[in-house]
Amino acid sequence: MHIIAIDAMGGDNSPVEIVKGAVTSLNQFLVDKKIKIILVGKENIIRDELKSYTYDENLIEIKNATEIIKSDEAAMSIRTKKDSSIVVGLNLLKENKADSFISAGSTGALLSGATLKIKRINGISRPALATLLPNKKGFSLMLDSGANVDCKPSYLLDFSLLGIAYMENVLGIENPRVGLVNVGTEKEKGNTLTKEVYEILSSANINFIGNIEARDISSGICDVVVCDGFAGNLILKTAEGYSKFIFDTIKKELTSNIMNKIGAFLSKKAFKKIKKSFDYAEIGGAPFLGLTSLVIKTHGSATHRDIVGAINQSYKFYNGKMIEKLEHLMNLTTNNKIQI
Amino acid sequence: MHIIAIDAMGGDNSPVEIVKGAVTSLNQFLVDKKIKIILVGKENIIRDELKSYTYDENLIEIKNATEIIKSDEAAMSIRTKKDSSIVVGLNLLKENKADSFISAGSTGALLSGATLKIKRINGISRPALATLLPNKKGFSLMLDSGANVDCKPSYLLDFSLLGIAYMENVLGIENPRVGLVNVGTEKEKGNTLTKEVYEILSSANINFIGNIEARDISSGICDVVVCDGFAGNLILKTAEGYSKFIFDTIKKELTSNIMNKIGAFLSKKAFKKIKKSFDYAEIGGAPFLGLTSLVIKTHGSATHRDIVGAINQSYKFYNGKMIEKLEHLMNLTTNNKIQI
Repeated sequence: MHIIAIDAMGGDNSPVEIVKGAVTSLNQFLVDKKIKIILVGKENIIRDELKSYTYDENLIEIKNATEIIKSDEAAMSIRTKKDSSIVVGLNLLKENKADSFISAGSTGALLSGATLKIKRINGISRPALATLLPNKKGFSLMLDSGANVDCKPSYLLDFSLLGIAYMENVLGIENPRVGLVNVGTEKEKGNTLTKEVYEILSSANINFIGNIEARDISSGICDVVVCDGFAGNLILKTAEGYSKFIFDTIKKELTSNIMNKIGAFLSKKAFKKIKKSFDYAEIGGAPFLGLTSLVIKTHGSATHRDIVGAINQSYKFYNGKMIEKLEHLMNLTTNNKIQI
Repeated sequence: MHIIAIDAMGGDNSPVEIVKGAVTSLNQFLVDKKIKIILVGKENIIRDELKSYTYDENLIEIKNATEIIKSDEAAMSIRTKKDSSIVVGLNLLKENKADSFISAGSTGALLSGATLKIKRINGISRPALATLLPNKKGFSLMLDSGANVDCKPSYLLDFSLLGIAYMENVLGIENPRVGLVNVGTEKEKGNTLTKEVYEILSSANINFIGNIEARDISSGICDVVVCDGFAGNLILKTAEGYSKFIFDTIKKELTSNIMNKIGAFLSKKAFKKIKKSFDYAEIGGAPFLGLTSLVIKTHGSATHRDIVGAINQSYKFYNGKMIEKLEHLMNLTTNNKIQI
């Protein structure tokens, strides 16, 4: 049975949406009783919230945590708030009482806490935050998307291996193509870091397609997009900012006069579909990969749909025996059976 | 009189659109005969092209250049193709036969050539490519957007000063706000580079608003967006890629059934307006700032409108006495009158 700890106090819509997501997901899974959920947070609040639902009480447990780390608190608050839902949740992983931990709370606190408390997979130098980006053909996984802002070249080989394993086992993509984010596609392009990484990835036994430009990510040029965490954060936030800018502009323009309003009404369904294609709640959150347990960061405004998505993601990860596969992969790499 | 050299052979639409842009602009300016244009490239081709137009022959000159550097050629082709339109054009600047050079040709060749041939403004360590990005309130200028992929912290102070001077004198913005692109807004956020740059910009006598996140650029949070050239390239190309992705998806969806088609038809005008707000041809190209002459890079698919925009931009730059102002600013900085 897959045991998932969930931060019931994290994010803007906690605990309502978090608890709703947990129960919804549990009731979907219930047929074969494959998962068990531990809701982490203020016990009385969670218990009250649970009263609205019908569910198998053996499959939801509450783990009391009296403190909350707010989303704008510094990462290092994990040191002072030892009874916060994030710290208590991570301790469940550390003590093998849960297989994964899902939180919509402070990214900094979650990543720092996970890095400090959870053992890394043997051979992985740094865990990486991975984000699924929508593209013309589906999704690509970008890592690192923010955990490591200063990277040594070798880290990016680790990120590639983590990304390959994830895309193969969780999204079912065969022989995933890896692209290195750079300022141009030619081999000799880039800064000091990417030039060295290019050499390393070229001689590794992976499906490396070479340098890619940031504009090609959305065309689905590769499955695993590799970059340092500073670059990943920029890409993510630029895409977010400009998508919002465009949709806001469209909305403003389309409601500015009566003809446009009629036009907008008639094409409403199409717009819904468009917005949906940019909404990847179904896929879940951003997995923090490279640790011996799975930590999933869902966004601060996560709704129950995101929680359901993250639980599905966690289950696939567990069912695909990702940790074991990654450990095996790293062993091969270390033993030079995968040539690097 | 402002003398502008233009690469007639650069970009996908050369020479047709380049020559058309030059003549169009000249005829707009003609009233007070403020500018003179030198078209650089294969003389016979340019002469043929010019036959379609009526213009003051004293104000357009042709400078023959027998070679062309293609857009996908390596930057260092400037060393072998000494009679290319880019090299010949830059030589006109070097020999003070022109005040500015506009090209839609190879970015790498143009920037490398300009860096090698044209003198830097005293005190500027590296020239930077500056790009105007549309935002909710107008435009912000991002630099460096690709010329320097590895930067020392002090370069980014230079970029800030160049950006301030440009926004004040070319776009008429008072006391421009400078933002440093980072992974978070808090002071302590960032990688090794941005942390050091934060300190430098904080103690400089400029309107520094602190760290900004990439998603805030489109909301118009500041006028001058400062980052290293690697980061700038990522931001630019991510914005480009995702904007295209969104517009393509919208187009596909809105033409997929008859109701949507009617909707799209009714809101056609609004869509045109939206697309226009993302079209910054009127503003011109990306100026390469920090040199004692102005070099403007317009995009590879530049049409005559972009050329007209770039010529206007060049004129404003010249008329605003930008080079002199920048030299003065750098003197002040060097003399510690602007505290850094």
